[in-house]
Amino acid sequence: MKTAIVLGGSRGIGKAIADSLKSIDCDVIATSKNELDTSSLESVSSFAEKHNQVDILVLNTEDDWNHYHNQLFLGFCLLLQKIRVNDGGYIFLMSSNVIKEPNPKLIISSAYRSAFSSVFKILSKEFAKKQISCINIAPGPIHTDRTKELIDDVEAFAQTLPMKRLGKPQEIGDFVKSIVENDIKYLSGAVINFDGANSNFVF
Amino acid sequence: MKTAIVLGGSRGIGKAIADSLKSIDCDVIATSKNELDTSSLESVSSFAEKHNQVDILVLNTEDDWNHYHNQLFLGFCLLLQKIRVNDGGYIFLMSSNVIKEPNPKLIISSAYRSAFSSVFKILSKEFAKKQISCINIAPGPIHTDRTKELIDDVEAFAQTLPMKRLGKPQEIGDFVKSIVENDIKYLSGAVINFDGANSNFVF
Amino acid sequence: MKTAIVLGGSRGIGKAIADSLKSIDCDVIATSKNELDTSSLESVSSFAEKHNQVDILVLNTEDDWNHYHNQLFLGFCLLLQKIRVNDGGYIFLMSSNVIKEPNPKLIISSAYRSAFSSVFKILSKEFAKKQISCINIAPGPIHTDRTKELIDDVEAFAQTLPMKRLGKPQEIGDFVKSIVENDIKYLSGAVINFDGANSNFVF
Amino acid sequence: MKTAIVLGGSRGIGKAIADSLKSIDCDVIATSKNELDTSSLESVSSFAEKHNQVDILVLNTEDDWNHYHNQLFLGFCLLLQKIRVNDGGYIFLMSSNVIKEPNPKLIISSAYRSAFSSVFKILSKEFAKKQISCINIAPGPIHTDRTKELIDDVEAFAQTLPMKRLGKPQEIGDFVKSIVENDIKYLSGAVINFDGANSNFVF
Repeated sequence: MKTAIVLGGSRGIGKAIADSLKSIDCDVIATSKNELDTSSLESVSSFAEKHNQVDILVLNTEDDWNHYHNQLFLGFCLLLQKIRVNDGGYIFLMSSNVIKEPNPKLIISSAYRSAFSSVFKILSKEFAKKQISCINIAPGPIHTDRTKELIDDVEAFAQTLPMKRLGKPQEIGDFVKSIVENDIKYLSGAVINFDGANSNFVF
Repeated sequence: MKTAIVLGGSRGIGKAIADSLKSIDCDVIATSKNELDTSSLESVSSFAEKHNQVDILVLNTEDDWNHYHNQLFLGFCLLLQKIRVNDGGYIFLMSSNVIKEPNPKLIISSAYRSAFSSVFKILSKEFAKKQISCINIAPGPIHTDRTKELIDDVEAFAQTLPMKRLGKPQEIGDFVKSIVENDIKYLSGAVINFDGANSNFVF
Repeated sequence: MKTAIVLGGSRGIGKAIADSLKSIDCDVIATSKNELDTSSLESVSSFAEKHNQVDILVLNTEDDWNHYHNQLFLGFCLLLQKIRVNDGGYIFLMSSNVIKEPNPKLIISSAYRSAFSSVFKILSKEFAKKQISCINIAPGPIHTDRTKELIDDVEAFAQTLPMKRLGKPQEIGDFVKSIVENDIKYLSGAVINFDGANSNFVF
Repeated sequence: MKTAIVLGGSRGIGKAIADSLKSIDCDVIATSKNELDTSSLESVSSFAEKHNQVDILVLNTEDDWNHYHNQLFLGFCLLLQKIRVNDGGYIFLMSSNVIKEPNPKLIISSAYRSAFSSVFKILSKEFAKKQISCINIAPGPIHTDRTKELIDDVEAFAQTLPMKRLGKPQEIGDFVKSIVENDIKYLSGAVINFDGANSNFVF
């Protein structure tokens, strides 16, 4: 049985991923912010002591200002140093489409997510030697509780999108599940824009 | 039952995709070059008359110089005009990592694949209105018969790659299957580099 | 004295570049569409016979549908085969910001400009051996006669842009002049978005 | 007379830029690390108190690990908050080609430079309203003292490059000078890879 750690796994996209992995019999540890606060390096260290080995690691976090401190950036770096991902495992990074098209309302998030995506790319080449896939998923507008807080009229917003709807967390959950279930490993090192054809750049 | 057309489906990546779709009970038409030569607009038109409606369309072709004429480019354009993809369907484009990092040995292929990727991006926004997902898969080094023809010492080449191996066509086949099987639609308009962490750009 | 050929040099950006180069005493041949129609391979060949050597070559063209045929693409390829650019020279390509963010109203232009940008990148590495710089300038909204034809209310459009104005052809002319005048050669192989902070992608 | 501040202006690229701006009669303050240490927020604040207004600001720094702390990132952010750039002015950012192709030997630099490039892109749209141009220059291999320290055999390394040589700091100095001298403002918000055709990505 494969083991998985899903950060921010108590709601939204993280929860969808955790549920999807459970459906294929993974042993999933889904952390809430209370259990693991990536903005506290102490919390990260303490967590990593207890859970220092895993098959599938999902780096995911919310979009709070506090999170997007260098602590967040360093928090993820620290996790990757402390938790051993088993050979043939997976590391999924939930970043955001702001890494390519930065958002003036999410300036710190845009910056630090870009920074960590850069580190993640470099690491993907290291992890490749052990057949560990590093998959950077960059979601666009996804329908989560957080989104409902941020956007006044979600329905009106949805009508401005190419698919006339936001993405469902379950679509990302199923995507992660499918990769793991089918043991697809060569999809590594890439940024996957998961945004329902919303971004304008092609390359 | 869903219907699928897989161009170049008699070998390599195309065959792997065709097989994967069959495994989830799709009704698959996998064309060989004899049945559909995308470099001949006549052949394209005649094919599209017989098969003018489908749920899943996989645009795939080999890397022959002859193919990489404007006929190829126009061939794909023509197919998308003539074949009606059903609402909620999929169009997969098998492009190549040369669309972002052009290859001097594949100059015409690099150019026309970039061109069609541009068209495909624009169309993804149109198709989104009907919940049709347009997914551009850009494979890096994949282990096909074609690769064996092109590369003298495949084993030595593999050792230069981050994963010390080429990708398996089946990994792409399984990827396409997973998307369809789980009805993941919000992954649209994106280029997915499927290259085992081989490319150097992050964004 | 340096010699320069500026395609489409009778108006708009091309004219501004031609004038700028003249101001630093280059011997400039600025072609109008009557003198060189890049959509006609015959016209291209005949022109290249007469002018088969140059220091500075500016590949520039208007956005007509007829131009954006494979003939255009092939036209530029043919020119680069037939005209010898002297060692230490320059090739400027006037492309467009549509090569990265394709425009649904300029679909063929978006596609073929992407295609030729790919070829141009590959060639930049070849030309580098002879210290010839290949500079791909991708203008955003520039105030030309063509723009006035395409956009109904230019003033209203300008107010939607970050600088509240379109770019001036002279800014591009001066840019090209400065590169040549200062013999800046290491700026090669890059795409330079010249769009007044209008695009949204950072990388 | 225009005023300019060039960080890291005592050597390498910074010095070349400072010299070039002086040649067109700018009043240039070129800081060494002793005068302004961007890794110390105190030093940044104290400097900005003395020099709180300028026409041309060149953000430039060396590649020390100490610099590439969040302090660096925050240092640049702080400078942009504290120093008022006059309307119609310029902000040049000397980043690096690692922002797009991260370098495993410069992992922290790659990350934080990407992060600040993201912030810089967002700010370019704000500054555009005041006709201030934000120009991100991303140099590849440039022949500086620093380069000689980092690379054992510079001559051998040069032979691996498309132009068989590294770039000259003066080429970047002249580039910056030309932009300012010709008052080219519409080149804003873009990343300009200044690498002698060395990178492999086209878009």
